[in-house]
This record gives sequence, structure tokens and C-alpha cells, in this order.
Amino acid sequence: MYFYKEDLINMIVPDKPDPQAAKVLQETLGGRFGEMRTMMQFFFQSANFRGPAKQYRDLIRGVFLEEISHVELVQTTINQLLNGSGEEGVGNSGTNGAPLEEAIKHANPHHFIMGAQSSLPVDAAGNPWNGNYVYSHGNLISDLLDNLVLESTGVLQKSRIYEMSSNKTFRETLAFLIVRDNAHQNAFAKALETLGVDWAKLFPVPNYDINKYPECRKYVEKGFHNAQFNFRLDETRIGEIFQGESPSRNSGQLSVVDPPQGYPVPELPIMPNEHSPGLYDLNS
Amino acid sequence: MYFYKEDLINMIVPDKPDPQAAKVLQETLGGRFGEMRTMMQFFFQSANFRGPAKQYRDLIRGVFLEEISHVELVQTTINQLLNGSGEEGVGNSGTNGAPLEEAIKHANPHHFIMGAQSSLPVDAAGNPWNGNYVYSHGNLISDLLDNLVLESTGVLQKSRIYEMSSNKTFRETLAFLIVRDNAHQNAFAKALETLGVDWAKLFPVPNYDINKYPECRKYVEKGFHNAQFNFRLDETRIGEIFQGESPSRNSGQLSVVDPPQGYPVPELPIMPNEHSPGLYDLNS
Amino acid sequence: MYFYKEDLINMIVPDKPDPQAAKVLQETLGGRFGEMRTMMQFFFQSANFRGPAKQYRDLIRGVFLEEISHVELVQTTINQLLNGSGEEGVGNSGTNGAPLEEAIKHANPHHFIMGAQSSLPVDAAGNPWNGNYVYSHGNLISDLLDNLVLESTGVLQKSRIYEMSSNKTFRETLAFLIVRDNAHQNAFAKALETLGVDWAKLFPVPNYDINKYPECRKYVEKGFHNAQFNFRLDETRIGEIFQGESPSRNSGQLSVVDPPQGYPVPELPIMPNEHSPGLYDLNS
Amino acid sequence: MYFYKEDLINMIVPDKPDPQAAKVLQETLGGRFGEMRTMMQFFFQSANFRGPAKQYRDLIRGVFLEEISHVELVQTTINQLLNGSGEEGVGNSGTNGAPLEEAIKHANPHHFIMGAQSSLPVDAAGNPWNGNYVYSHGNLISDLLDNLVLESTGVLQKSRIYEMSSNKTFRETLAFLIVRDNAHQNAFAKALETLGVDWAKLFPVPNYDINKYPECRKYVEKGFHNAQFNFRLDETRIGEIFQGESPSRNSGQLSVVDPPQGYPVPELPIMPNEHSPGLYDLNS
Amino acid sequence: MYFYKEDLINMIVPDKPDPQAAKVLQETLGGRFGEMRTMMQFFFQSANFRGPAKQYRDLIRGVFLEEISHVELVQTTINQLLNGSGEEGVGNSGTNGAPLEEAIKHANPHHFIMGAQSSLPVDAAGNPWNGNYVYSHGNLISDLLDNLVLESTGVLQKSRIYEMSSNKTFRETLAFLIVRDNAHQNAFAKALETLGVDWAKLFPVPNYDINKYPECRKYVEKGFHNAQFNFRLDETRIGEIFQGESPSRNSGQLSVVDPPQGYPVPELPIMPNEHSPGLYDLNS
Amino acid sequence: MYFYKEDLINMIVPDKPDPQAAKVLQETLGGRFGEMRTMMQFFFQSANFRGPAKQYRDLIRGVFLEEISHVELVQTTINQLLNGSGEEGVGNSGTNGAPLEEAIKHANPHHFIMGAQSSLPVDAAGNPWNGNYVYSHGNLISDLLDNLVLESTGVLQKSRIYEMSSNKTFRETLAFLIVRDNAHQNAFAKALETLGVDWAKLFPVPNYDINKYPECRKYVEKGFHNAQFNFRLDETRIGEIFQGESPSRNSGQLSVVDPPQGYPVPELPIMPNEHSPGLYDLNS
Repeated sequence: MYFYKEDLINMIVPDKPDPQAAKVLQETLGGRFGEMRTMMQFFFQSANFRGPAKQYRDLIRGVFLEEISHVELVQTTINQLLNGSGEEGVGNSGTNGAPLEEAIKHANPHHFIMGAQSSLPVDAAGNPWNGNYVYSHGNLISDLLDNLVLESTGVLQKSRIYEMSSNKTFRETLAFLIVRDNAHQNAFAKALETLGVDWAKLFPVPNYDINKYPECRKYVEKGFHNAQFNFRLDETRIGEIFQGESPSRNSGQLSVVDPPQGYPVPELPIMPNEHSPGLYDLNS
Repeated sequence: MYFYKEDLINMIVPDKPDPQAAKVLQETLGGRFGEMRTMMQFFFQSANFRGPAKQYRDLIRGVFLEEISHVELVQTTINQLLNGSGEEGVGNSGTNGAPLEEAIKHANPHHFIMGAQSSLPVDAAGNPWNGNYVYSHGNLISDLLDNLVLESTGVLQKSRIYEMSSNKTFRETLAFLIVRDNAHQNAFAKALETLGVDWAKLFPVPNYDINKYPECRKYVEKGFHNAQFNFRLDETRIGEIFQGESPSRNSGQLSVVDPPQGYPVPELPIMPNEHSPGLYDLNS
Repeated sequence: MYFYKEDLINMIVPDKPDPQAAKVLQETLGGRFGEMRTMMQFFFQSANFRGPAKQYRDLIRGVFLEEISHVELVQTTINQLLNGSGEEGVGNSGTNGAPLEEAIKHANPHHFIMGAQSSLPVDAAGNPWNGNYVYSHGNLISDLLDNLVLESTGVLQKSRIYEMSSNKTFRETLAFLIVRDNAHQNAFAKALETLGVDWAKLFPVPNYDINKYPECRKYVEKGFHNAQFNFRLDETRIGEIFQGESPSRNSGQLSVVDPPQGYPVPELPIMPNEHSPGLYDLNS
Repeated sequence: MYFYKEDLINMIVPDKPDPQAAKVLQETLGGRFGEMRTMMQFFFQSANFRGPAKQYRDLIRGVFLEEISHVELVQTTINQLLNGSGEEGVGNSGTNGAPLEEAIKHANPHHFIMGAQSSLPVDAAGNPWNGNYVYSHGNLISDLLDNLVLESTGVLQKSRIYEMSSNKTFRETLAFLIVRDNAHQNAFAKALETLGVDWAKLFPVPNYDINKYPECRKYVEKGFHNAQFNFRLDETRIGEIFQGESPSRNSGQLSVVDPPQGYPVPELPIMPNEHSPGLYDLNS
Repeated sequence: MYFYKEDLINMIVPDKPDPQAAKVLQETLGGRFGEMRTMMQFFFQSANFRGPAKQYRDLIRGVFLEEISHVELVQTTINQLLNGSGEEGVGNSGTNGAPLEEAIKHANPHHFIMGAQSSLPVDAAGNPWNGNYVYSHGNLISDLLDNLVLESTGVLQKSRIYEMSSNKTFRETLAFLIVRDNAHQNAFAKALETLGVDWAKLFPVPNYDINKYPECRKYVEKGFHNAQFNFRLDETRIGEIFQGESPSRNSGQLSVVDPPQGYPVPELPIMPNEHSPGLYDLNS
Repeated sequence: MYFYKEDLINMIVPDKPDPQAAKVLQETLGGRFGEMRTMMQFFFQSANFRGPAKQYRDLIRGVFLEEISHVELVQTTINQLLNGSGEEGVGNSGTNGAPLEEAIKHANPHHFIMGAQSSLPVDAAGNPWNGNYVYSHGNLISDLLDNLVLESTGVLQKSRIYEMSSNKTFRETLAFLIVRDNAHQNAFAKALETLGVDWAKLFPVPNYDINKYPECRKYVEKGFHNAQFNFRLDETRIGEIFQGESPSRNSGQLSVVDPPQGYPVPELPIMPNEHSPGLYDLNS
């Protein structure tokens, strides 16, 4: 069973609305290599696990638990990027009495139609998330290799999306997730190390320079690239795998640690033009 | 952030393999009105919530938290129904040295190809789950009405699926979920009551006789149809809505209660023919 | 604007339930070459028509109007084939108190889960209808050629589906539609004749022997293969095209005629086990 | 059977081309809550109806019949918005001999590729319409609740789309449909009232101020929000439901009336650059 | 079996990056009437061919073989159009340290996220290619008519896409493919001529003036509109069909000829910002 | 450019029709890990390749070239399995004059509706192939790891499908492809070895016993698991990678060799009941 504390796993840094950034950040939420896929892939793999070597199942499940928080973090970031776009005085306000005319020019119009300027289960091109993204092979080695591709591509895509806007809300969330995807690469690479593989200097993929992303630095300094947060309320065998020397070129010691302190969920104001939440008259 | 204790929200009753039942139970997992949709719909609605009336957000989120456990329960039930189908001696074993020939006759062949006899994010007709199932309208009344349709259809479909096999593993899970969908109908109907609606005798939908489903009785006796389990580790305002007289014909008092005691997750044995988990040689 | 008289365009011949036949007949409703596609393709082509040569637009629209009735005929036929399957005493009733266990063995389980034993917007393999089936090229010659392919494939597929059951309800509807698809082939082939094409003996496609389908004969005797029903309440220029010698090997004179007498829509009985319509208690 | 008179259900107000507006108006045609979905959902629900309480079936079918005209109205509006975009002298003409270069910047390029600047069965994000949008639950209460969500979301989305352009062609069609969706909300809310529900002040959803949409006023003055147009050529029992006091806060008496006078379908000129209709040489 | 020589079937003309042009050119690669569809449709039709009249199968297969090269040509053209977009100094470079901010405004963001500025199996609206585009009817006449629609629509769409940019890389590839689609129209029209059809002046569709597309002229002068390239290393009966007078208004003699000389595949430079190929450090 | 010789890459062993086997073998053709995906994934990766390290591009392209032949082999195998099913005297012939009644019971009905008992671009559950299966990451390491997952899962799924029928036509094709997927695992694993990875005993995945599949033995004896067939008509640098000691536990020396001798494509007889090819009357 699953329990919840209303805390975000990372902070939301305030900045101006940026609906174009919100559109591309959807890739990180509902894309083929986004957080919804990692969450659901690891959920299915851990539920479908066979056999007694449960240290591997606990590792996959441990990453799954964190991915739920990642989904929530990206939903919240997209909401923050959309919030207030299309309002008068925001700079990208419309003309001729059509407040959304400018806002939707480079945005996903569904952000303004389907909900009240809020996140959607779609990717950066507007395609809805699809169950065929999820791979649960029933074979542990295939699953681990696939998860490694998934986390590597996660960093790869996020480092490309990072170049698409200098908005601070946008980049802070990407930077945190880049570092965490790095930790999850380490988790799956290490699991394959226990089966005999020597990765030499292959990881991290991509072969990126962490200094390019200034927002990443503080997370690296906290050791987040070598840590696995533990969201279990009972015992877990994850530490049998996630320990010892990091399998990546960046070295360091892997360790299972407590989750970060939580961060507050920003309250989204009512938006009468969007009829959200739509209770203002009834409740008065 | 999300925390986990390795407990199922209900028991798995043992019975024989039944791959045809596993195929149709997929509707309850990955169908348009299945547990993956309720989970993701309530996840998006609560993350996208606007305004200060957070008792409604806490209600939606409270149901979301339980749905994660429902997804896990249905995954586990499907795994149990598939486990061992196609083995010699099971009765539906194959002939001519083709052990799966009979098993797949009325089954979803993907259950035996994609993974090692285990659950998938698809529906009873084999269609993968789709992000376009999720509705987060950004308007609280639309969201509540939609959720009411969703929980009503949940019972409706489960009571039809129940007629498709007399397998005990299958029926126990369906019965538990029927009662819980009833509670969730009450939750959303009650929320609309706070906005002035009088439902008269409309609910529960469908207009079903609980005595038709003998497995349901014990859950009704425990009051599960009028209870909302609380999975929060911090404060929640859910009790401001989920209280007082039930909005359904079946009457009773609504109350927020502790989650049920947990039930053990059955260990799935290794399945060498399916190469799962595939570690047997390497680890020896 | 569109007007309606509650009449089916052809009779529903009674026979036993046959859920397997209902499954494959879905191709004729929601398949890539089914009636929903012809209906929507001709709807878009006629609404998107450019230029003054409206005799062609009126031809396309005239066929569209009939296709709405075809959709209704196939929906009703599927409902008739499903109606009562799974009931005790029907012959395919279940065992062990699971009335649908046998019914779903070769059926589409969605017929029993999504609705109350009734038609769906899907094809014979369970794939939902997709807007990408519709081609409206904006070029009349491409549109006419495409429509010709569509109507030819319509006959081709229906004559194959006909071999899948000897159920009379099933075959009568297929036979009527085969003859009408023949008429619509003539319509689009004739339109291309007005642009200079000589089809020689190419049509009808497929090169089929009408005597193989005994149910077709009476419709051919009524001249339905050379007639275009007129559902317009105002003037139409369709007769400028649909006239003169048939473009098919089967010869005859084309003519625009009144629609057939209507046939009654069978009343579907309530189905308490499926909770349909679900009013039985409330209304008493 | 279905009959047709070449009349639009509302006027097309002339204004300049606006391909960006055409893109977002596609949501109203081919979106999850657009006119194609309402049309097909009510078509399936009325064809699949069970039992003798045909006043409800006639209500659902009555709305279905109007939705066909709505689809045609939106197709025609999109065509009008696209017509002439990309031509020299229109203001958004291209440069460097590439007439469509500017037109497609914020448009759906498929509007210019798939057809000759004309409507498509897709939504505002370019996703094709999908049969999985259609819900026909086989249970009347679920169907009515679902239809209520559908019509409520229809208004909600149209009032958001309205903010995306001040083009008069665009806004007039949206305003008419907003008022009609209001009438259809009343229809389904009233049907649930006959089963005992008291809606208090819940409707209309969203809780919108009709004065925000000046184009709506004349339709409200004509009473279109409380009227159900009757497109039946035979008897119908719709008036047993659609009568008496409106279930909405806006009050008034519900009544079944004749359809509006028809409006002419604008003739779309030939477009040689798009090869449409492509007959200009052959016919000369 | 299939053999390869690293030669493009046509030249890549250099010009500036143009990501908006790359977006729309995707239609020609992964659209419903693009080269992936023709390639796969003719692949399935030739593999599924029945009966001894293999001159028709060899014709379909012959066109299939060329389509593989067309896919490669369009992939390479898209790569060339994307290559270097978003770099500083290119003109559409970003601001504020976000190099891709401008590049993605009118582009498909997936071109910059999924791969390293390179081609994708999607259409101009970002929808992934779908197997339901492929028609292999099992009836030769239906197949030939369908292929004729396909090749006609190929020209139609390419001549519309041509208007969307004056970029030389873009237009050269489109012009070559327009002429080749013309030849393939001739192939399928001729095949139907052998079955008796007289096309009069129907073809080519669309009824286009080749002089509008100056880049086409040199290919017409080489006779590419009346030639079928032969990619077989063994005997083929294609010449039994593709011979004699062209079935199109443009007349000329059809003949089977050797493939064009090959053209070099441009080398795509490494792109460190996109982490492609990602070997730069490891290999040094 | 691509050249063809009409030879299958492996033999088709004759056996009885088996439409259920044809249904599940579709996974190997049009499934998420089937031959269409490997073909298209390697096609895009090689066309999109960046930088001078072309030995890797030539490796990926070399495997792509073979995959085209694999698609053709599986299409042909499915056609052979379907050919004649549903005919009188075959054993699974229908009753009551409905020859396909029995044939479709456990088959994909589309095999008998869409074409004339022939292959389709779909998977074992009837889902059409989707462009979103293709991953071309633009980063060589990600691409190689992904390809390794793909080829491993290829063996995994084929070894499970093998258990679904003892039909010889079916098993021979699967056995050949299992051995070839093994060779392709070696190719991608070796490429990663050149970047420093030491795989220890991880491969082959799954950890399977080749002796379980008696049909595989002759291919292993020929060394097909350690050979890369060369389909290039010009120079290739593939041998710089595919050489030396195999990266798998099964050891041996990797070498680039000539393709196998070709095997004849079985001629599919005409099928008048399916109207295929539909020329029998016209041509006589």
C-alpha cells in the first residue's frame, strides 16, 4: 500500500509564465522516455517479478516509488509555467480582446482547452501517453538493460530540452531530474555489475559535462547522483545492490539515504476566465 | 512524496490458473474504466487543482492514493491467474510438445509473449492504455461528475466481468473492488451534495443487488462501502466532505478510517521455460 | 440539416444469438473499410467540396446520406446477434454459475463489458475506429478513385465475412450491403466515366458471382445494384451523373429512385444481468 | 432513415482567413469533447437502447440528429477560416515565392497538405478522432450522467477556445454552439430529474456569465437555450422529458420546437494552387 | 534478399537550415501518403501476391525497391534541413543562453529531443506512422486502384508542401519525387490498361503544370516520368507491363532502365550539444 | 540504393495450415520487438548517423539489410500457415456452408478479411505496427544498448512463441531467426566491447539452452550465430567491429561472410473464394 505526505521532492523556483517551455517539458512528463513511463514500467516490472532474488525487485520498486514524486514534480512545474499566461499585462497577452491569441502561438493549445492551464498526459508533440511504451520483459537481464537505456535517454533528452528555454522554473526541475536520472543509471548499471559486467568508462550516458548545467551543481554536491532515496516504511533489500563504488566514471560511493526534505506545493490561484475551479459563486 | 509498505490491500484467494479470466480482467487494469485510468485521472486532477477549497482536492487525492493499491492488486491477481497455465498437468496443457498451444486458445497471447505470464498495461481486447482516457477538466464540477461516471462504470463493468469465470482468485478481487468503487461513488456523490445536489435514489449505479455477489458481503459487513481509507501521513481535509449520511439508497454513515490490514504479496516462482527471471545459471 | 424517420433501410431476419458472428461483423461497422468510414469520408468530402460542379458533390453527399442508415443497420444487426447470448438455455450458456464463460470464448469481450451486449465503434480485431481512415483529398479525381477503392473493398470484405457464419441475421444484412456497395461502385465509376474513363469490364470488383450469395438475388431483382436512393428533401443534381448505362459488366440502366420502404427497428429487451437500461426498479 | 435539406443550422459570418483559429476550432469538430464525439456517442446510445422507456431513447436520438448539423456547421466554419489563407495579398502571404510559408507557422500543416485548405477529423493538437472517445454504457443512468459531462465540457472548452481569436466567423459559430450545448445540458439534466435528482443550482456548468459572449445574446433571446429542435419526420416521445421548468439556474420553460430556418452553405471557390477540385482543364 | 550500395538516388542540394521545412517534409516520409507507406504497402502486396500472373507482382515489387531509396532520400533531406539549426550564428539562434528557443518555435520539438536533429517516423503533425495505413487487399484490381490513388496523392501533397518553403534542399528532393510519383502513376495506370481500362485524359493527377516546379524540368528531360528503374539482380517480368505508350496525357514511351548514377550521402558532423554520436571523449 | 534477388534467406518447410500459429507469429513480424521494428529502427539509426566513426554506422546498416529479408521470411511463413485454412477437407473446415467458421475461432479474423489469407503489419494481439516503436536516440551508446535490448528480447519472445505450436513451417522460421538474433546480439555487444565494456557471461540473453530447439542446431553448426552476412555491393567497415572472439558465453570467432544461398519463394495459389488475385475471369 502507498502512503503520501504533501511534499514535493524538489523546490519550484518562481519565474515568468512560459507556455512554449511548458509544451516541451511535457516530453519529460508524458513522453516515451518521460516520468510516466519510468513510473509505470518499474511498477509493472516489480509487480511481475519472479523468483527469490528480491534484492533486484526491491531496487526496481525503490526507483518506481521515487518516479511517482517525479511525475508530481513535473506536473507542478508545467502548471507553474502555464499559470498566468494569456493574462493581460503578462507580456504575451493577446490583442483585440482575444487574451489567448498570443499565448497559443507556440504553445500546445490543449494546455488551454482541456484543462485550466495545466499539465496533461501527453508528450511535446501532443501525442497522448501510450501503454505500449512500457516494457516488462519477464527476464531480469532484459529488464535491467532496458531500464538502463531508459534512464540514459532520460538524461539525454532532458539535457536537450534544457536548451529550449532559460526560464528558471523550467531549468531547475530539469537539473534536479538530470542528477536523479544519473543516480538511477547507477542503480541499474550496478545491478548488472553484480551479474559480472564491467562497464569501464561507458557511463554516464550521455557523456556530458555537468558544468554545463549550473543548476545541477548543488545536487551533485549533496551527492544526489550517488544516492538512492528510500521511500519504504518496511524493510528493503535494495542496499544489497546499491552500495560500494559507483559504476560511473564520476566515481564515488553509492548509498541508500533518506528522502530529501519536502518542498511546499505552490497553490494555484483560481482562474475565473478558465472557469476553474468553478466554485466561486456557489461557495460565496 | 510517496511511501510504501509491501502489503496488498486485499487477499489473493488461491485457485487454478485461468488465462481466459486473466484476459478479461485486464479490462479492470488497463481498460478505459480500469484502475490505471482512475489512478492517473485522480493524480492529474489533484496536481492540477486550483483555488483554496482544498477539501475537494484532498478527497480526489485520497481516492488516487487507494487506486495505486488497486492497480497493484489487479496486477497481482492477473499474475496469479496466469501462473502455471500451459504447464504439464494443469489440464489445459498443450499437446505435441507445444505446451502453450491450448493455453493461448482463448487467452491474450501477449500474456505469454511480452512478459513471463504476467500483467500488461492493456484492456480485455488487447488495446494498450491511452493517455486520452484521462480527463482533468480544470473545473471542479465537471471533474466530480466525470469521476462519478467513472466509479459507476467501474462497478457496472466489474459486475459484468464477474459473470465470465467462477474462478475464486478472479471473483474475490472483483468483489472487493466492486465494494470500493461503491465507496468512491459515495465520495464523489457526497462532494456534489455539498454543492446542493439531492440525488434521491439514483445511487448506487448500477442498480444492483449486492446479494448476487456472495464475495461482496463480508466487505459490506465491514462497512467498506461507506468508508474512505486514509493513506495520508500528514493532515488532510477529506473528512470535511466524506462524513454524515451516505448519498446512496443503501444509507449508512460515511467515515474516514485507517487502511485495512495488509495482505502478503504471493511470491511468483521462477519460470525457466519463460526465461524468468533468467538468473538461475548465473547466480548458482 | 438532417431529418429522421424511425425506419431501418432493410429488414432484420431473426435467428439465434451468434457472438462470434457479431465480432467479425464489427469490421463492417467500425473497420477501415466499414460503414463508419464511408459515412465520415463522404461527409467530409461533401462539406469540403470546392467549385461549381455540384453534381459531383451531390453524388458524394447522396451516398453519404445512405451510409448513415447503413451504420444504423449494422449496429442493429450486431445487437440482434448478441442479444441473449450468455443466457441459460441458449446453448452457449456458461457453466459453474458463470453465464458468460462460454459466450466470450470466441467473442469480443468488450461486447459484454463496455455495453449491454451491443455494438461498438471498433473493428473485427477490436481496434477502435480512427479518424486517419478518412481521406478527403481536396481533389475530385483522387476522391472519386479513392471512393471506388473503398466501395470495391467493401464488397470484397463483406463477401469474405459472409463465409464466417451461416446465421441468417448476419447474412441478410451482408447481402443487402453487398448489393448496395455495388450500386455505389457504379456511382463513383460513372462519375469517372463523365471525365472520360472507359472501364471496359473491370467492374464490379471483386469479380464475383452473385449467385454464390442467395440472399442477394432479391435485391438484384429489385434493381438495387443500379439504383441510387434519394434522401434529399430539396433539389439535387445527382441525376446528372447517376443515369444511363451502368459502367459495370452487369449492365442495366442507372436511376435515382425513392428510398426503400422502411423496416421496423426491433425492440431490444431489458437485460437485468447487464444492468440495462437500469431503470427497472426506479420506474416501478 | 436519414433525410437532408441543404441548409446550415446557423449562419456563417464573413471575416478574414485565420488559419490559427481554424487549427484550434478543430477541437470542436474532432476533439475528445467535440461534435463528432457527441454525434457518434448519441448515435450508438440510441441504437443500443434497451427496454420500453423510449422517451429517453428519443431524447438521446433527438440530440444526435442535431449533432450531425453541428458537425457540418463546424466543418464549414473551418473551411471559411482557411479559405484564402496563403494567397498573395491576404496579409499572411508568404515570401520568396513560398506562398504557404507564413500561413503554416501557427497553423496545422495538415490543413494545407491533406486537403485543399479544409476541415479534418482531428483535434486542436492534430490527433485523429478515436472511437475510444465514444461511451455507450448500456446503462441509462451512466449514459445520461456521461452525456451531461460531455455537454458541460462542451461549453467549458468552447468558452476557452473563444478567447483564442476575435475573428467573427470563428466566434459566431462558437457562440451558437455554446447556447445549444446549454440546451443539451438541460435535456440530460432534466432526464435525470425525472429519475428523482434535484440539481439545485449546479447547472449550467461552467458557471459562466452569458454576457461575456456578446454573440450569444441573440440566441438566448430566441430561447435557444431552453429549446429542443425536432428533426423527426414521424412521432417522437421526446416531449415527455423535455418540458416544464428548466433544471438550470437560468430558469425558463423547456419546449420542443421546429428547427431554425436554414442558412445557405457558402460556396468554396476553386483553388488551382491546391489542385481543387482539379477539374478546371478537363471540363473546359 | 536485399543488397545495398551506399548511393543516394538523387542529389542533396545544399542550403541553409530550415527546421520548419523539415517539420512539413516529414509528411513525405512518415505521413499517410508518404514514402514509408508506399514502401511498406508494396512490400506487403508483393509478398502476399497469389497466382501465376507474376508480371504484376514484379511491377509492384519493382516500385517497392525504389521506395526504399526514397525513404533514405527523404531521411537525408530532413537531416540536412535540421543540421545546424539552433547553432549560434545561424540566424535563428536562440537568446538568453537558450540556443534552441527560436529553433523550436515553428518546428517539431521532437526533431531536437528524440534524436540529434534528425528524421523521425512521423508525419507533419507529429503523429507516428501507423500500420493501418497499409492496404494489401489480396485482390489485384483493388490493389492497383489503391496504389494509383496513393501515387496520385503523393504528387498532390508534394506539390502543396513545395509551396511551404523556398529552401533549395527541400524543393530539389520534392521535385525529384514528384516526377518519380508520376512514373509510378504510369506504372499502375498501365497495369490497369492491360486489363482493359482506357484512362482518356484522366492522368496525371493532379492536373498540374510541370512548369510551375522549375526543379522538375531536368528530370522530365531525362525521361524520368516515363522510366521504371530496375533494381533487380535477377530476371523480372516488369517489362511486360511497363512498356509502350504512356497512359498519361503527357504521352511518351514507357521503358525499364538502369537506376540513376548514385549520389554521395552527405556526412553529418558530430553535434556535441546534442551528445551525438557521443563518442568524442571515449575515442580520443 | 537497394537491389534485390528473388531468394528467401531461409527455407520454408511445408506443413499443414495453422491459422492460430499464424496469429501469434504476427508478433515476430509486426510486434514491438518484431522484424519490422528492427528493420525500421536500424534504417533510421544508420540514416541519422553523425560523425566519422562509420564502422559503427556500417554495422547498424549491415544488420538493417538483413532485417529486410527477415520481414520477407516472416511474411512468407505466415502466408504458408494461412494458405488453405478454411478450405473443405483441411480438417478445420467449417460447417453449415460457412467454410471460415472454424478457421477464425482462434485466428486473427483480419487474416481472412483484410487480405486473402495473408500477412499483415500487426502484432499477435492485432494492434497495428506503430512508428513510436522506433528509437533513434542520436547517441551511439544509447542506440547500441537499445539495439542489444531489442535483439535479446527478439530471442526471448521467439523462444516463447515457439511453444505455441509444433507446426514445422512455424518452428523452422523461428529457429533460424533465434540463431540470427543471437548473431545480432553479438554484433551490438561487440560494438560496446570496443568502447571498453566487458560483458563477462551476461550474453546470450535469455540464458537459453540451444538444445531445446532442435531446429536451431543445424544453423549453429553452420556458425550462423557468429556470422554477419554481408549484403553490401560496395565497401563496408563492418569487419572492424564484427571480428575476433565472440562476446557471448558460447564463444567462437566472429566473421563477416557471404549471405546464405537463397531459397525459393513458394508460389501462393489463386484463391477464388477470397477473390485473389481476382484476374481469373478477365485473363482467360
